[in-house]
Amino acid sequence: MRTSQYLLSTLKETPASAEVISHQLMLRAGLVRNVASGLYTWLPTGLKVLRKVENIVREEMQRAGALEVLMPMVQPADLWQESGRLDDYGPELLRLNDRHMRPFVLGPTHEEVITKLIANEISSYKQLPLNVFQIQTKFRDEIRPRFGVMRGREFLMKDAYSFHLGEDCLKKTYQVMFDAYCRIFDRLGLDYRPVIADTGSIGGDASHEFHVLADSGEDDIAFSDVSDFAANVEKAEALAPAGERPTPKAALTEVATPNVRSIEDVAAFLKVESSKTVKTLLVQGIATDDNQAPIVALVLRGDHQLNEVKAENLPQVAAPLTFATEQQLLDEIGCHAGSIGPVGLSVEVIVDRSAAHLADFVCGANKDDVHYSGANWDRDAKNYSIADIRNVVAGDPSPCGEGKIVIKRGVEVGHIFQLGEKYAQAMNCGVLTEAGKNQTLTMGCYGIGVSRIVAAAIEQNHDKYGIKWPAAIAPFQVAIVPMNMAKSARVQETAEHLYQQLQTAGIDVIFDDRKERPGVMFADHELIGTPLLLVIGERNLDKQEIEVKNRISGEKSLLAISDVMSLFTK
Amino acid sequence: MRTSQYLLSTLKETPASAEVISHQLMLRAGLVRNVASGLYTWLPTGLKVLRKVENIVREEMQRAGALEVLMPMVQPADLWQESGRLDDYGPELLRLNDRHMRPFVLGPTHEEVITKLIANEISSYKQLPLNVFQIQTKFRDEIRPRFGVMRGREFLMKDAYSFHLGEDCLKKTYQVMFDAYCRIFDRLGLDYRPVIADTGSIGGDASHEFHVLADSGEDDIAFSDVSDFAANVEKAEALAPAGERPTPKAALTEVATPNVRSIEDVAAFLKVESSKTVKTLLVQGIATDDNQAPIVALVLRGDHQLNEVKAENLPQVAAPLTFATEQQLLDEIGCHAGSIGPVGLSVEVIVDRSAAHLADFVCGANKDDVHYSGANWDRDAKNYSIADIRNVVAGDPSPCGEGKIVIKRGVEVGHIFQLGEKYAQAMNCGVLTEAGKNQTLTMGCYGIGVSRIVAAAIEQNHDKYGIKWPAAIAPFQVAIVPMNMAKSARVQETAEHLYQQLQTAGIDVIFDDRKERPGVMFADHELIGTPLLLVIGERNLDKQEIEVKNRISGEKSLLAISDVMSLFTK
Repeated sequence: MRTSQYLLSTLKETPASAEVISHQLMLRAGLVRNVASGLYTWLPTGLKVLRKVENIVREEMQRAGALEVLMPMVQPADLWQESGRLDDYGPELLRLNDRHMRPFVLGPTHEEVITKLIANEISSYKQLPLNVFQIQTKFRDEIRPRFGVMRGREFLMKDAYSFHLGEDCLKKTYQVMFDAYCRIFDRLGLDYRPVIADTGSIGGDASHEFHVLADSGEDDIAFSDVSDFAANVEKAEALAPAGERPTPKAALTEVATPNVRSIEDVAAFLKVESSKTVKTLLVQGIATDDNQAPIVALVLRGDHQLNEVKAENLPQVAAPLTFATEQQLLDEIGCHAGSIGPVGLSVEVIVDRSAAHLADFVCGANKDDVHYSGANWDRDAKNYSIADIRNVVAGDPSPCGEGKIVIKRGVEVGHIFQLGEKYAQAMNCGVLTEAGKNQTLTMGCYGIGVSRIVAAAIEQNHDKYGIKWPAAIAPFQVAIVPMNMAKSARVQETAEHLYQQLQTAGIDVIFDDRKERPGVMFADHELIGTPLLLVIGERNLDKQEIEVKNRISGEKSLLAISDVMSLFTK
Repeated sequence: MRTSQYLLSTLKETPASAEVISHQLMLRAGLVRNVASGLYTWLPTGLKVLRKVENIVREEMQRAGALEVLMPMVQPADLWQESGRLDDYGPELLRLNDRHMRPFVLGPTHEEVITKLIANEISSYKQLPLNVFQIQTKFRDEIRPRFGVMRGREFLMKDAYSFHLGEDCLKKTYQVMFDAYCRIFDRLGLDYRPVIADTGSIGGDASHEFHVLADSGEDDIAFSDVSDFAANVEKAEALAPAGERPTPKAALTEVATPNVRSIEDVAAFLKVESSKTVKTLLVQGIATDDNQAPIVALVLRGDHQLNEVKAENLPQVAAPLTFATEQQLLDEIGCHAGSIGPVGLSVEVIVDRSAAHLADFVCGANKDDVHYSGANWDRDAKNYSIADIRNVVAGDPSPCGEGKIVIKRGVEVGHIFQLGEKYAQAMNCGVLTEAGKNQTLTMGCYGIGVSRIVAAAIEQNHDKYGIKWPAAIAPFQVAIVPMNMAKSARVQETAEHLYQQLQTAGIDVIFDDRKERPGVMFADHELIGTPLLLVIGERNLDKQEIEVKNRISGEKSLLAISDVMSLFTK
């Protein structure tokens, strides 16, 4: 490709609308342009990357035995009625009517369409297991689309659905998909982690997310520093501290704490570590019969954060998690939020494992502007139960039993689920077994955000000059950058010669034949992130050499023109 | 691919819902399944064909210098407001609102999005010409979707848009696209014709359609039997007959024709050829000032058909073409439709060139149940004008001046337009010229119905057993069909060996490893239309041979197993 016949569309300035680095660089490097909120046109350079990602995903899905199909984006609403999701899905499901006023949706996912198809096509256990996938445009009407294609409304996704006679068969295919996903992200050249995940609203039994690690990621992931263990922070278990709880040494003492309410203020005022204090959060419990829902107290160490998913899963706590109002606190406890504590508290008390391991701690005294020091469980605070209700933090023992927790941020780019029978049951998808009985199928589903991977790769691989693509998904493998070509026939001839040679060899090459200053050309190619630049200048041509700049390592070296092809033979 | 791990989904019965042969065969051969009216899922076999078509289209577009982009399917309605098409497009444009009640459309085409993009990205004449394309899912809300993917609602299309400084540059790219389209349809292995077309509602100056010839096609195409000339029948000019009009010989004579009204009946009753009669059609004219629209008479030879497009283009006739009502005939002429003629008619009369060349013809006498014989222009019927208002018929002289017209049916699979400035002007898409002035760009647009090509290929290539794919787009290049594999270790070993060998060589092979009777397997592979079947049977293995069946020619031959790869070396 010659730049003079190409739509380079690089920008010098960072558009003000772009908040995250990948969005900024995708606009500046001419990968995408915004059409409307959450809707993008992929320009030639961006589409080249997208297609490379797509092809790797397709090849590995096929290698793993999955069959490619293509389902429509516009889906009849009655299929969603049948699965029960038409009401459940919420406003991210864009609903529309056709010219005959028949209701349709724009597909955010395809469980309904595929389950209906398989229910019609498959009748015998002999045709199982079956794993079908598509790489197709999806639409989710995000309330606030942002971060460019990272959280857009229309996007390219690979979704696969597997069908089985029973759990054991599902688990085998789930593992095959897990391995295929690892191969995909290995081939993409990304630093990623498979992470134990919450199954969330899609339902089912087991689930892993695949995260590309990047400081700007939306999700916190907890790793073991010695084993393969990795889990979404929401999902990682916080173990109880080792050993026995220390024996109480201090006496329970009321301390006046005028206008001292936050944990930080209390700890500073009383000159103790916040890890020696507890905080008490009051949330709505579960209503019994006709009674109003009671309030439940959740007690955590001052330096720990509540894990809302864990709290919601407690049998005593209402979901979604709802905090008590200030008025409820005053009515039921008689003080404001900053002065509550577990000593003498009249509501049900659930204590996090770490908080329950403290002795001689500081807590609110259930009177405004008063705290206790020297508080102790059982002696002072009675009638409580213990549970894991906090987020893990760096340094915690890993729940796998090996090593300590390290926390990194990640961008979710894949998600695999063991779905079970949810959709197959709703949509009557079963087969005759060998014994001649009808049996509902068990399903798995496996997603990869193809367009999202492009953004995640940039979040992980960039510097102040622009993108540093992994080789497998770079839009061009190499750029030819001639210096002052207009003034040197020798530079022009060499550039043209190399361009023909590389093209003939099937190398994805861009030849910068613009009459621009060298600085402008370098800036563009560093922004776009082409891994190798071949710089052709008069001086080096005296020795029949060109300069090779490696975008990733930053290294420069001289190379004989006759050796250029050796750069591409591995 | 092994059939045992594949979703073959062939059907023995022809689904009653399918009217045309391509739709029937696409369902029976397991290429597509209906999801809702005009919406289809492409099954693995169908998608393989679709992707092969898509890849040929992409390769030739790239070879022709077009740059691939990807625009969103969901488009903001305000872009359509800006171009003026939001009101013009009609109900095939599906309109919808997002969750914030902002109006969008599902893109049936992308002139607006691309023109807006280029208006923003291109500022200098140096960046021109530019030709961008995408292969992308479109939606048109057809009032009555039918014929399977041939006239579906959601479909895959290649659309390209070129941008130029002036007509001359556009014409060059138009020719480049014309040539690229010829290469595409050549490579697809289809019998096709580029056809001069009406520019229709999309506007612009010149236009060609590309038709795949098939008896079941929706469109009539007129060819010259000696030159390259081909035009849509709507667009083909019917020349005036050669030579002078014969001189009148007969006297104008009233003939009683009780209950004889149609041309066929009149010709039979009076024992003349229908080509010696004329028929007179009354249509609405153009209203002047406050006067009601007058009626206009269109006169054609009895054996000719009115060309409605030509009639609409007459300055005296209202568009869309509207026939006079029976009541208007009685009020204005005083008789019913079957007895009208040009002699003494009080309304404006426009005579087709061929009808105007008749002498001594038969026509209605403007009295019920009465006709004239021996009618002649000028002598009997005065005050008329002459125009080309009929469809050409086989045997007409070709308007190119060489040879005679032959008429064949075709399926439109491509359409190229010289658009001119219509969209660029509406959307303010211009550049600075070399002289520093702002100039509106001139555009071309170029479409190919990718999914439609799959159906058209089947319309053209099938027999009573199923599809006969052109090699380039066959879902599989070859099928291995072992006879009674379960009973013969030797058959099984040979089949497995050949399967490995072909797969390793990168041949797209399907191995029928089902435990089915030979008849069932043959029927499936003939239905699916795999070009070559390798039949492995005990008897031939004695001589280390297999049988090769050619699906296209029907030929069978024996081949040494060691020579199998020679089938694929060309």
